[in-house]
Amino acid sequence: MDENILGLVAGGITSVAMLPQLIKVLKNKDVEDLSILMILFLVLGLSLWVWYGIIKEELPIILSNAFAVLVNICLLISYFRYRKK
Amino acid sequence: MDENILGLVAGGITSVAMLPQLIKVLKNKDVEDLSILMILFLVLGLSLWVWYGIIKEELPIILSNAFAVLVNICLLISYFRYRKK
Repeated sequence: MDENILGLVAGGITSVAMLPQLIKVLKNKDVEDLSILMILFLVLGLSLWVWYGIIKEELPIILSNAFAVLVNICLLISYFRYRKK
Repeated sequence: MDENILGLVAGGITSVAMLPQLIKVLKNKDVEDLSILMILFLVLGLSLWVWYGIIKEELPIILSNAFAVLVNICLLISYFRYRKK
């Protein structure tokens, strides 16, 4: 398989992966079983992947991780909004 | 920053990201707020990233995603073990 197509497919799947989690949280307004550390690590790590993609000039890495960062920031905001005090 | 070091740091962070989530699930035995779709997408997408890394011969991509696949498979097993029937 062409490496760029493979990268786009892989990036597409991993970047939409957190979307059903975000939808579930927005629907149930419940984040009790979610780990805040997971969300924080993902925001930080995925942002570094965007940087890596920019240096290596690899568009699949840049696009997929940038989208995933956005979804995880929404998840982070939802976490603080819905967590039980 | 050297791109390989950046890749290793980014990969290190994203690959350990799911670990606190797995630990939380194993401790609380509760997966009600987790999205099974998120876990399935991650296992599939991260596996494709390993494949991408092999083709591009980029060790940070291979190692970090392979580790993340393992953690997510453990999360998947835990999900079916602890979900409420």
